[in-house]
Amino acid sequence: MSRIVERIDSLFNPQSIAFIGASKKPGKWGFIIFLHLLMSSYNGKVYPVNPNEKEVLGVPSYPSLDDIPYDVDLAYVTIPQDKVIDIMQECIKKGVKAVILIAAGFGEIAEENKELEKEIASIAERGNLVVMGPNCNGIVSASCGLCALMPAFFPKKGHIAVVSQSGNIGNSILVRGMEHNIGFSRYISSGNESHLCSEDYIEYYGEDDETKVITAYIEGIKDGRKFFEVAKRVTKKKPIILLKGGTTAFGASAAKSHTGSMAGSAEVFASMCRQAGIIGVNNLDEMFDIASSFLCQPLPKGNNVGIVTGGGGWGVVVSDACAREGLNLPDLEPETISALDQILPSWWNKGNPIDTVAGQNRAAFIDAMEILIKSDYIDSAIGLGIGFSAMTGDAYSTSKFRSQFKELDMPGHSASQDLKTAEKIIKLKNEYKKPILLATDAAVMAKSHEHSVFKMYEDEGIIVFPTPDRATRVLAKLTHYKNYLQDS
Amino acid sequence: MSRIVERIDSLFNPQSIAFIGASKKPGKWGFIIFLHLLMSSYNGKVYPVNPNEKEVLGVPSYPSLDDIPYDVDLAYVTIPQDKVIDIMQECIKKGVKAVILIAAGFGEIAEENKELEKEIASIAERGNLVVMGPNCNGIVSASCGLCALMPAFFPKKGHIAVVSQSGNIGNSILVRGMEHNIGFSRYISSGNESHLCSEDYIEYYGEDDETKVITAYIEGIKDGRKFFEVAKRVTKKKPIILLKGGTTAFGASAAKSHTGSMAGSAEVFASMCRQAGIIGVNNLDEMFDIASSFLCQPLPKGNNVGIVTGGGGWGVVVSDACAREGLNLPDLEPETISALDQILPSWWNKGNPIDTVAGQNRAAFIDAMEILIKSDYIDSAIGLGIGFSAMTGDAYSTSKFRSQFKELDMPGHSASQDLKTAEKIIKLKNEYKKPILLATDAAVMAKSHEHSVFKMYEDEGIIVFPTPDRATRVLAKLTHYKNYLQDS
Repeated sequence: MSRIVERIDSLFNPQSIAFIGASKKPGKWGFIIFLHLLMSSYNGKVYPVNPNEKEVLGVPSYPSLDDIPYDVDLAYVTIPQDKVIDIMQECIKKGVKAVILIAAGFGEIAEENKELEKEIASIAERGNLVVMGPNCNGIVSASCGLCALMPAFFPKKGHIAVVSQSGNIGNSILVRGMEHNIGFSRYISSGNESHLCSEDYIEYYGEDDETKVITAYIEGIKDGRKFFEVAKRVTKKKPIILLKGGTTAFGASAAKSHTGSMAGSAEVFASMCRQAGIIGVNNLDEMFDIASSFLCQPLPKGNNVGIVTGGGGWGVVVSDACAREGLNLPDLEPETISALDQILPSWWNKGNPIDTVAGQNRAAFIDAMEILIKSDYIDSAIGLGIGFSAMTGDAYSTSKFRSQFKELDMPGHSASQDLKTAEKIIKLKNEYKKPILLATDAAVMAKSHEHSVFKMYEDEGIIVFPTPDRATRVLAKLTHYKNYLQDS
Repeated sequence: MSRIVERIDSLFNPQSIAFIGASKKPGKWGFIIFLHLLMSSYNGKVYPVNPNEKEVLGVPSYPSLDDIPYDVDLAYVTIPQDKVIDIMQECIKKGVKAVILIAAGFGEIAEENKELEKEIASIAERGNLVVMGPNCNGIVSASCGLCALMPAFFPKKGHIAVVSQSGNIGNSILVRGMEHNIGFSRYISSGNESHLCSEDYIEYYGEDDETKVITAYIEGIKDGRKFFEVAKRVTKKKPIILLKGGTTAFGASAAKSHTGSMAGSAEVFASMCRQAGIIGVNNLDEMFDIASSFLCQPLPKGNNVGIVTGGGGWGVVVSDACAREGLNLPDLEPETISALDQILPSWWNKGNPIDTVAGQNRAAFIDAMEILIKSDYIDSAIGLGIGFSAMTGDAYSTSKFRSQFKELDMPGHSASQDLKTAEKIIKLKNEYKKPILLATDAAVMAKSHEHSVFKMYEDEGIIVFPTPDRATRVLAKLTHYKNYLQDS
């Protein structure tokens, strides 16, 4: 481990935490975040510090850091800005290794406060401790069960790491994980980055066995050369997915008052990202779509995509999306066509996308997918229109015709057929080690998330996307990343 | 009414329907779609036609169209391609005014079959009837309760009209309406458009009082001049939101085998759309986001957007989105700033977006929105980060700390605060007649749709978007459409 990575480890794996500013008053951050820390499954010791209380939320409290008769690895600080320098001095005296500063009111509100931030950094370096923040939202570290954020979010343990210069954007990433039951290894709301910067956390994530994918929200970078040097090294090992805030004049102005960041040229930044193998995204949904897919999908060997669709229009739309994203739709080879002739009606389109012809025989969907995915010239696949039973089940069950027919559903639109499809698609993806991305209207319907078919995909970590272009965009990023790894 | 609009009315308001090919065999389209017709609330007469059955699904059946002793306005035809010409001749003899041809197997599978399509058109003109299809998925017409599609979809009555050259893309639009409880006036899966073309339906929708917004999915246009002439007239009265399939080489090739469409230059098409005031979209979610917002939001008077955000990062991201979409974020005027000084902490950012400072006082969100929306120089607003209680409620209710505190929630993050916010935002939108678009992470979570806060927005027809850029894109389209109306 490099020096900074070792030092940052005290932030992610502290044996003990002093919570300076822990409070009994609902509404105070010192109450809310401390409560969330206690609600989390943190496996170390916790010491609230508050000169006016004997206990906070049932935990014995100390008048000052110095009064704690045990070692303290991490100090979580929720007291206001004007006391932060004093507290940092106390932390050094106590031998604290890492400090989290929640309070706002630094360089983001006045130019002169940037001096205060510089002082924080220089005290940190003199005292050999690391500082996260200020103006931040908290930390998650799954390895020790630590989760202490402003909102009551308790994401499950997993392999996505987050570093965000915005607490609420960081939370937006967590929300998407919680929605899809996909877990996180680490989460850092890095705030104003007075001391530790995004690239430091990214360097740590690069060496972190718990982390397989890194997501980052960045408004500004203090040391561009260092950032991209770190990123270039890390992207050789694991993907970095980055959303840049402040790429326009309006956005840059908002960023200045948010984290005090000065955004540089958006074009230069985007070009540096490409060179460093960083995957740039346009919004939060896209970020999570891609991050989660890196966890559950094999990387494609090349640009050749095969498509199976339950409807022609979706096939057209996904073909457009593939073209726009730089993916290739090869013509089907003669042996693929003759194999498909065996399972599809004679008038099938004999092209790629393969249209399984409007649901007349939905079992053909899986057979077509298998024929496609086992073909040498196909590197990846997109399947459109699965999970139909999730959409129509209710209509039939409440119909007066229900009692008259045992099999009212359209053939192959039954839940059991959808389950068979899910099982087979997961099997094919794993057996042939090729990514299979899925999109369907069924994913639009909130209730379908509760549906057993979606549960099966979710257990495999697969998000079924609501539109073909979302699935295609993800596949393109997987493909481009694989190309980057091969070329570098 | 123009001649074609009058003739099309028999399709949307038939007094009686003959269903030619109605079947007792589950799995046949003649069974499935006929069943769905019976399941719908169609208020006219229904006559199944099948030479081998005395009744179908409990409805007395006739051996042939000619055997029906009553007038027939609309013939719904599910029998195969090779019998279609004969059936059409029978329809003319019977005095049928409109025919729906479901069967595929025409111009989309072989060039020579295009002659068959031409014959359909010429028989239709000679017999003074209109033909929808072939190769289509069915029709919905809320005014007479008619709903007979391949899937068991029964959208509620409303004001969005759909014309789609793809059945499954048309269905994708319906699914989004069903998910958000937003209704439809008409739905046409226009298929290969042998006779009636997209522009004919659009002309009808233009004069249709039930229809307030038109959505269209187009792969190819037979008569471009006519299409854009019709569109230009209609967009003066109501918006047309259009998704174009086949804008790339891959997409165009897929479209050819889907509906037999020959796509022209994508650039020329896009430019013609802009001139005709058509709102082009990139995907299905965007289409429905915009369509539904035209129904519930006033049109903004100009490009000036005010933003209220519960978090700085979202403010940055939405500012970037506004800049990209050509919207303007004016600086706040002195009186706005002094009004906001009264309700926000002293260190608030004094800019647009207005950051209400990380949830410390969530009631300030509504007050800030009111100050903003009543300002003359603000034409529209975006609110970010509402509905927080929908995300965190569960965590607290299951915590062991629940019993210790009456008010465990963060101040203003309670469900009652979220309800107050919803009520006030709806009131402000209606009172000041300015659009207020909303985005929040809470909308990502499937369960939140069941949440009472979202129910309140939904009852007003408002979709709360999962990302700031989706809200911004919608606002941009509302703004550009208003500018188009003013300039033309």
